[in-house]
Amino acid sequence: MIFGSPLLARLVSLFKKMPGIGEKSAQRLALHVLRSDRATVEELSRTLLEIKDKVGLCTVCANVAEGERCVICTDTRRTDDTLCIVEQPQDVYVVERTGAFHGRYQVLHGALSPLDGVGPEQLKLGGLARRVRAAGTREVIVATNSTVEGDATALYVGQVLQGTGVRVTRLARGLPVGGSLEFLDEATLGRAFEGRADV
Amino acid sequence: MIFGSPLLARLVSLFKKMPGIGEKSAQRLALHVLRSDRATVEELSRTLLEIKDKVGLCTVCANVAEGERCVICTDTRRTDDTLCIVEQPQDVYVVERTGAFHGRYQVLHGALSPLDGVGPEQLKLGGLARRVRAAGTREVIVATNSTVEGDATALYVGQVLQGTGVRVTRLARGLPVGGSLEFLDEATLGRAFEGRADV
Repeated sequence: MIFGSPLLARLVSLFKKMPGIGEKSAQRLALHVLRSDRATVEELSRTLLEIKDKVGLCTVCANVAEGERCVICTDTRRTDDTLCIVEQPQDVYVVERTGAFHGRYQVLHGALSPLDGVGPEQLKLGGLARRVRAAGTREVIVATNSTVEGDATALYVGQVLQGTGVRVTRLARGLPVGGSLEFLDEATLGRAFEGRADV
Repeated sequence: MIFGSPLLARLVSLFKKMPGIGEKSAQRLALHVLRSDRATVEELSRTLLEIKDKVGLCTVCANVAEGERCVICTDTRRTDDTLCIVEQPQDVYVVERTGAFHGRYQVLHGALSPLDGVGPEQLKLGGLARRVRAAGTREVIVATNSTVEGDATALYVGQVLQGTGVRVTRLARGLPVGGSLEFLDEATLGRAFEGRADV
């Protein structure tokens, strides 16, 4: 019995269910809880329950939301002209940090991966074609990851939007800013050649 | 505002205070909580509070304990002849897994490190000289880490026990089992030479 305490062992096993937390990390976290002052642990305990009570997904775009709609869908300064499709809620804020996009989002909560049992019905597409038509969207930017799953998802989104007249684009693939050719993988360098642009 | 939800942002900042959890991991954990079913989150929330209520440190050896004394101090099958000194509660169970030790423990909850402000008064030595005399301990095995801090702590323990007549030993340093010389660092190989034994 780890730590000779069934309670601490239970906390370790609960932490271990979390993504990226192995046995050692779970033990370290559990001991950290044991050493933390009571107020901190109470706040963590309370916040966990509050999240389940008050935070959910936006009914429009499936982004994280406190209430019916997320802060981006309720922001009247943003344009409906462009819609950016991302895999995960984290990705919304990665895109937001660039300051390069001022449209709306759709969060899929995954990417097509038949081997993992993720088909189109598992993705939160939110009636994409209908939404795009209703909002008068002119361009849908598919910002899924540059992986096999992300590529398959982008193709699928293209099919879904066929006939709507909306332009469907993907993020450019190429050299990272500040990157040198020497350390670039062949696939990325190949894409950088294909997507070359005039100086 | 990360995720556009003050509650989720608070959970991210609470997770970030934990050891080994950075911004990205904290975000992933918070989203995991958001996606987990309510029962799981409730169990985690409840267990956290229970830990603070019911789990503490053993009054004898400072190991983790539910109640006054830990499972090792209350185990009558163990011998008082030998006492093993470790830095952290995790280390108790690392030693236990070897099955090579059947005595008692003392958990220091740290190692001497003047630069980090850890002096002898920060270590949980639990009146070591008195304890050793009262229990009739014959050997104290210092199983601190093989670091500068662990070495300094071992020396200090030796000083504390001077005059008690008890034998103070440290763990051997040398080749790891299954290790080859080729990949060994010089310091360890040097120690392996010093500590060589007859075949």
